[in-house]
Amino acid sequence: MSITSIDARTGEPRGASYDETSAAEVAATCAAAAAAAPGWAALSRADRAGALEDVAAALEARSAEIIATADAETALGEPRLTGELARTCFQLRFFAEVVREGSYLEATIDHADTSPMGPRPDLRRMLVPVGPVAVFGASNFPLAFSVPGGDTASALAAGCPVVVKAHEAHPATSVLCFEAMRAVLPDGVISLVLGRAAGAALVRDPHVRAVGFTGSTRGGRALADLAAARPEPIPFYGELGSVNAFVVTPAAAAVRAEEIGRGLADSFTLGAGQFCTKPGLALVPAGADGDGLRDAVTTAAEGRTFTMLTDGIRHAYETAAGRADTRAVTPTIVEVEAGELTPELLEEVFGPYLVIARYDGAADLDAAIDALPGALTATVHGEDDDRLGADLARSLPNRVGRVVWNGYPTGVSVGWAQHHGGPWPGTNTLFTSVGATAVRRFQRPVAWQSAPASVLPEELRDDHDGIPRRVDGVLHLPTT
Amino acid sequence: MSITSIDARTGEPRGASYDETSAAEVAATCAAAAAAAPGWAALSRADRAGALEDVAAALEARSAEIIATADAETALGEPRLTGELARTCFQLRFFAEVVREGSYLEATIDHADTSPMGPRPDLRRMLVPVGPVAVFGASNFPLAFSVPGGDTASALAAGCPVVVKAHEAHPATSVLCFEAMRAVLPDGVISLVLGRAAGAALVRDPHVRAVGFTGSTRGGRALADLAAARPEPIPFYGELGSVNAFVVTPAAAAVRAEEIGRGLADSFTLGAGQFCTKPGLALVPAGADGDGLRDAVTTAAEGRTFTMLTDGIRHAYETAAGRADTRAVTPTIVEVEAGELTPELLEEVFGPYLVIARYDGAADLDAAIDALPGALTATVHGEDDDRLGADLARSLPNRVGRVVWNGYPTGVSVGWAQHHGGPWPGTNTLFTSVGATAVRRFQRPVAWQSAPASVLPEELRDDHDGIPRRVDGVLHLPTT
Repeated sequence: MSITSIDARTGEPRGASYDETSAAEVAATCAAAAAAAPGWAALSRADRAGALEDVAAALEARSAEIIATADAETALGEPRLTGELARTCFQLRFFAEVVREGSYLEATIDHADTSPMGPRPDLRRMLVPVGPVAVFGASNFPLAFSVPGGDTASALAAGCPVVVKAHEAHPATSVLCFEAMRAVLPDGVISLVLGRAAGAALVRDPHVRAVGFTGSTRGGRALADLAAARPEPIPFYGELGSVNAFVVTPAAAAVRAEEIGRGLADSFTLGAGQFCTKPGLALVPAGADGDGLRDAVTTAAEGRTFTMLTDGIRHAYETAAGRADTRAVTPTIVEVEAGELTPELLEEVFGPYLVIARYDGAADLDAAIDALPGALTATVHGEDDDRLGADLARSLPNRVGRVVWNGYPTGVSVGWAQHHGGPWPGTNTLFTSVGATAVRRFQRPVAWQSAPASVLPEELRDDHDGIPRRVDGVLHLPTT
Repeated sequence: MSITSIDARTGEPRGASYDETSAAEVAATCAAAAAAAPGWAALSRADRAGALEDVAAALEARSAEIIATADAETALGEPRLTGELARTCFQLRFFAEVVREGSYLEATIDHADTSPMGPRPDLRRMLVPVGPVAVFGASNFPLAFSVPGGDTASALAAGCPVVVKAHEAHPATSVLCFEAMRAVLPDGVISLVLGRAAGAALVRDPHVRAVGFTGSTRGGRALADLAAARPEPIPFYGELGSVNAFVVTPAAAAVRAEEIGRGLADSFTLGAGQFCTKPGLALVPAGADGDGLRDAVTTAAEGRTFTMLTDGIRHAYETAAGRADTRAVTPTIVEVEAGELTPELLEEVFGPYLVIARYDGAADLDAAIDALPGALTATVHGEDDDRLGADLARSLPNRVGRVVWNGYPTGVSVGWAQHHGGPWPGTNTLFTSVGATAVRRFQRPVAWQSAPASVLPEELRDDHDGIPRRVDGVLHLPTT
């Protein structure tokens, strides 16, 4: 069996195809990753940070070829893919910064002491790499959430070798990125497998210690179940489907209907609506202001056309939209009353698809919000001194991972304070796949009791002063 | 059906019995916990810390009754249970300190800025409580790992209501502790259910957001599978079975055989060998020094007798030991050559049971260590300038959660640097159930994007200065 690189705009093969990785090859790849794990884990923080920067530079050196290939395979367009490669390289360098800063180790020292419980031994704790990590590339971000993406970057930063399962939608892009990375990393630290069977074998492989996944709730759940059913279960970090609510208060609709409508149209159609943070459900007030907002969204979206990532995605979108477009699809806006929201309408539709639910008063809105499944984000558009808006901004954190005020949920910046995760089905864990703390998914704690300095990691020795540490209960910053 | 309080020393009913909680009662209990969740989560850190201290005081106020009841139900003895209650109350006060210190919130602020990716919105992240937590009491610690134990204390500290499933081995102790706690906590913040069916219902209840469990690998795995199979999967934190390796180098055996042997005898029989950190496998060198160590363990353990927690535990121990003792059991020491270690010999036996495996040289030892399953701890006894000991202390962190140097693994002190967890089957997650970071199991991240100060938690407002925070990438300590 082989995987063929397809031109997303024409549906025609591009002339490159790749053998699916056999079960034996997956096993050998994972064994090689396990063999590479101790060396990669033992690298100093400075050296690992440098290696992440080398990866960024290696990708940039082949940017023209990578962007052209990704554009052919995804039809996302050169500007978007140029931005996505920049994001990918920024992210690698950001994780290098996280590694150098060193807080991610959570280095903690309790010197021997007496306590109300009697004498207490010297204890020192820090986080160590879990070992080889499997990463599943996503269809919708051929770079930033695929071979060189956030899961890979954070696992490498944590000190773990990575085996990526390439997404079928962009095999040539995956191979290209993999080759650029492999050239600057030690043997076995980055590997690539292709094919769905290889992906399942990866999740079951005894050398694999954790899995990072970005994709559909259904696909993610199936793999999560595999991970949980292993003889030794391993963590599965799934960033899954999400219906991101976008709530406009009457006060906001009264003064910004046109502006919000245009912004919403841009956001729900961004990347052809193939973003996990796409605002899929707008809760808009009944009445003239809400009508105006709806009209503004509709007008702004009208006439736009998009090429979907794959034929399969296009087909699923057209089924949900209830029509068959030509190869280029057009946006779909479904309008209902808030009381008419069914569970089906609260399922993610991948593509430029928006449900506008009109609510009549706060009670109607509350009832609709109570019925929402967990999600990655929720957005509130409100005004200053807008009681309803403030109430929403305070209550929505109970249901989602990120609350956006007077903005748009698409666009997930990479930084220290980012959180990209949320209650099921947004994700299946309490972690983020974007931002500094994404590394925590691939680390486990170890405590050393009464150990001589010679056997401790350098960050846990008394004389180390390069990173923030908690010593005898008190957090200390490095003095240098 | 009802659960009867049994005198562990006589096997006779103590005269108290308790109805098993029905499915409808479990559902109502979890709904009440969910109703209590917002109020408990919204409490200020100072008030929640105060409430934890009130719980400690309430338990101390009834200490005589609690200790006497626990002693009758477990036969662990008054000195041990007095210490265990002290530990339990110390732990509650320690988590109050963790809450006041505030680092556990991971408060992080990135002000709006430009980045290589273009303008970046204001983002603020912190951890919030997950919601109601189910806790399974353990047989072997009727206080410190049961109703008022570490899982409960850390979940309450994180801001989560707790529903405890009492262990069948000590229902009267559980009810007593629960009543003491309920009297000082808001309605619904602490609840108790009884019976195995109630425990399973708890794991499946839609209001429950996480589970803490201490017990056998088999029981834990069954519940973990239930948690993973829910329509909305939830995290299951299982502290499971563990064979804790105890390695003595030839250099250490040459000079401390007698001392190490006596210490090992005390450690593997502590609490009748019913500790999850019991050293269950001693790797001892072949030859005269190792013989001396084996003789010292055997002599020290000989003649000791123990009452097991329950008839079931006694029966399982006697089956493993291959004999039937009278009501009081005696220690079992099995000696094999390291090459003879089978998977059966590497399974935890609950009770005063020790396998001594004799190794002949470093290669023999390495082979034995390579075959070890994951565990909570490993211990090395070595000498200064003992190359083998240092190598072991450096490599064993790959396999366990805590490495003990020249000490004994039983005794898990509560503190900032403690880690009580480890690779499967030690636990099924990357978390600890003891120490400051135990709270992290019951928190999830939320990010606020461009939110006005009025809707932010106080710890994320610019003017807050009470806790360590990361602002624009730099960790800051409070100035007050």
